[in-house]
Parts: sequence; structure tokens; C-alpha cells
Amino acid sequence: MASTDPSTPSHPYYPLEIEIIGYLANQHSVPTLLAFFASGCAAVFAFTYAIVTRMRAGSSRLRTSELLTVLWFVLCGCIHAFFEGYYVYNFRAMGGLQTVFGQLWKEYSLSDSRYLTQDPFVLCMETITAVCWGPLSFAIAYMITTEHPLRHPLQIIVSLGQIYGDVLYYGTSMFDHYIAGISYSRPERYYFWGYYFLMNFFWIVIPAVLVKVSIKASVRAANALKQLEKGKKTA
Amino acid sequence: MASTDPSTPSHPYYPLEIEIIGYLANQHSVPTLLAFFASGCAAVFAFTYAIVTRMRAGSSRLRTSELLTVLWFVLCGCIHAFFEGYYVYNFRAMGGLQTVFGQLWKEYSLSDSRYLTQDPFVLCMETITAVCWGPLSFAIAYMITTEHPLRHPLQIIVSLGQIYGDVLYYGTSMFDHYIAGISYSRPERYYFWGYYFLMNFFWIVIPAVLVKVSIKASVRAANALKQLEKGKKTA
Repeated sequence: MASTDPSTPSHPYYPLEIEIIGYLANQHSVPTLLAFFASGCAAVFAFTYAIVTRMRAGSSRLRTSELLTVLWFVLCGCIHAFFEGYYVYNFRAMGGLQTVFGQLWKEYSLSDSRYLTQDPFVLCMETITAVCWGPLSFAIAYMITTEHPLRHPLQIIVSLGQIYGDVLYYGTSMFDHYIAGISYSRPERYYFWGYYFLMNFFWIVIPAVLVKVSIKASVRAANALKQLEKGKKTA
Repeated sequence: MASTDPSTPSHPYYPLEIEIIGYLANQHSVPTLLAFFASGCAAVFAFTYAIVTRMRAGSSRLRTSELLTVLWFVLCGCIHAFFEGYYVYNFRAMGGLQTVFGQLWKEYSLSDSRYLTQDPFVLCMETITAVCWGPLSFAIAYMITTEHPLRHPLQIIVSLGQIYGDVLYYGTSMFDHYIAGISYSRPERYYFWGYYFLMNFFWIVIPAVLVKVSIKASVRAANALKQLEKGKKTA
């Protein structure tokens, strides 16, 4: 459905003059897409809850904060490895994809068109997210459930990786907006605040809390090690 | 000294058609600049060694590996906070600076011109490096010297931040090179391999070793905590 008038763009993304290879408008409505995403998240939570309950059958129940952290990391694992991985795998052809994931990405891209234009930074950051933080998120969920000693160092690594990637994600587009005068979001404010800002802000706030939790746990453990070593020396 | 012929560039950087605002050729020779950098590093090492020796006067000597790690982090602190901070502070005017740091950056930029063209990713990554990893590197050096329990979690954070920033730094310019067909390095191979590859590779290899060291220390500490808690339960 490319426009025949060259002055009007053939797509709804900003900046209007960008070229989106093979662009096709979404077929599903926005409520349908959002409902799909929400029910996907709900299914992940339910499935994880069932697995954790079964895995902990013989031992004490996980504390609520630990259970919530497991749910968070399994959700992160799914989003990083599958949803963001889908973008990484298909980054050359995102504009024309009509799968549910493809249409979800096109809907999100109304707030950040870089996902449709082979942006080098977004592609590199998403590749690391999908390849490293995805699998490691599942590993951490497992380690919390089994109280594995690797849990806190790995939780610091993944959560810091999420924060850093996100800060650069915000930073590069703020630079382009304020300094270079290029906006990747449509002008309607709900795209910017609802998709671009809010969706990504979760991956700053929650990982920051988790880094803090893990730092505290690591300090407590380091002090325990010191105490044990002192005990051995005096014994 | 801008060329009057528009077909020949007025600067030695690649891609040749980029505009470098207010470009001035370096006045110092390359050996002079490299000697300045090397003697700066040597001075940092000597100064740090003296301070550490004085700080540890009352207690046992630091193990060699720990002393080397302190030297590494103080060097990182200086490079991140001062040298990279200098770029962040002056990023709009790098092409015309004739200070020693300015000329060092112009020499390095022969292998990556993004430092002279207000590249959004490089600026954002360097800002985080200068503002976060710089001061935290000094803090870690202090914590190693004083055997502070915060040392290992912080060492994981800073080292991972260095690795991630560096991988993105390589990744974005490899994307531009292989996929977009844009090279930021001059064609002479020693610029690419000597400056761009080697100088940055240190910040992948050494932090990777340090992350491994800190993960091991954290696991040992977590096991000690478990042991102590078990002891309390059975006591």
C-alpha cells in the first residue's frame, strides 16, 4: 500500500522520511496484540508458579520476594530470548512481518522506529540481551529455586546488564532527540510515555532493586567468610 | 588549513567525507604523544604502589595478584574519569583541541573517527564509563587495599560494565563496517589493530578475569554463610 504521492510517507513511523524495507501495515488490532502479550505473560507466570511449587515440594516454601524474583527472571528470560531474539533474528525484515511477534514489534516501533531501520546500536544491544541475558535469566530463576551459591553474583551480572543496556537505549535516543533533533517516536504522547518510557523503565527499576538485594547478600556472605576464617585462625 | 579543492578532504580521518568541526592537525609528534601517555601510566603505577605500601604498613602485605588488581583499577579510574571524561566534556569540539589529551584523542581517532563526529552511542557509553566506572574503580582499589566486603560485588559491576561497553563499542562499528559498509578506521592496518583492537581488548580480557575471580570469591562466601547458618540451627 505504498503511497503514490512521494511527499506523503507510506508508513506511520517517525521521522517520516525513513525508509522501511517491505513495510506492511499490521492486520491485528492494537487491543488484540496487547491482549496476546498480556496473556503470554500470564501463561508464563502460571507455568513458572506450578514448576516452582513442584520443585520445592520436599523443602520449605520460597519466601514471597524470592518467588516474585523467580517469576520476574522467567518472564525476562522469555522476553529476552524469544521476543527480543525474534527481532535480532529478523532485524533486516521487521517492517514486513505479519506474525504476532512481528506485529507486536511494529506496534512498539511507533514509539521507536529504530527497530525497523537496522539501527547498529539497537541491534548490538538486543543481540547481547537475547544471547546472554536471556539464557542467564532462566539460570538465575533455577538458582533461586535451588538456593544455589552462584545466584547473587549472576543476579548482579544480568541485572546490571539490563540496566546498562536500557540506559544506553534511552541515552542514544535522547541524544538524537535533544542534540541532533531527530525523534524516533510518533508525536502522540501515549506512544512515547506508554511504550517507550514505561515499558523500558521496568528494566531499570526492578534490576536496580535486585542489584541492591544481591550486593547486600554478598556483603553478608563476605562477612560470614571472614568470621569463619577468623574462627579457624583462633581455633 | 582546509583544502580549497572540495574533492580532497581537509582531514586524515575515515570515512573521508565526514565533517570534523574546527579540525586542527596535531602539533606534537606521535612518539611524543605515546611517550606522554606511557609516562602518565607509569606515574600512576608508582604513586599507587607508594600509597598502598603506606596504607598496608600495619598489616600483612597484599598478595601480588591483589596488588596488580589495585594498580589496574587506579589506572582504569584515571583513564575513565580524566581521559575519557575529557572527551565527554569536550565532545562537540574534539577536532580542534590542541591540549595533550586533545591531541591523544585525535591520534586515537585515526582508528575510530566516531570520537570526532559526536556519535550518540560513543558519547553515551563514554559518559557512563567516565561518570560511573571511573569513580567506582577508585573505590574498588580502596576496598581491595582495606579488604572491604563490598569489594567483590562492586568488582563484578565495574568489570561487567567495562566488558559490556566494550563489546557494544566493537559491535556497533563492526556492524557499520560489515553491514552498512562504513569504516571509521584509516586503512593502514596498524591503526585498526594497534589502536582500535588492542587498546580496547585489554578492557575485555582483564575484566573477564576479574569477573571470574569475583564470582569464585562470592560462591566461596555464600557457602561460608550457609555453613554458619547451619551451625546456628544445629547449635
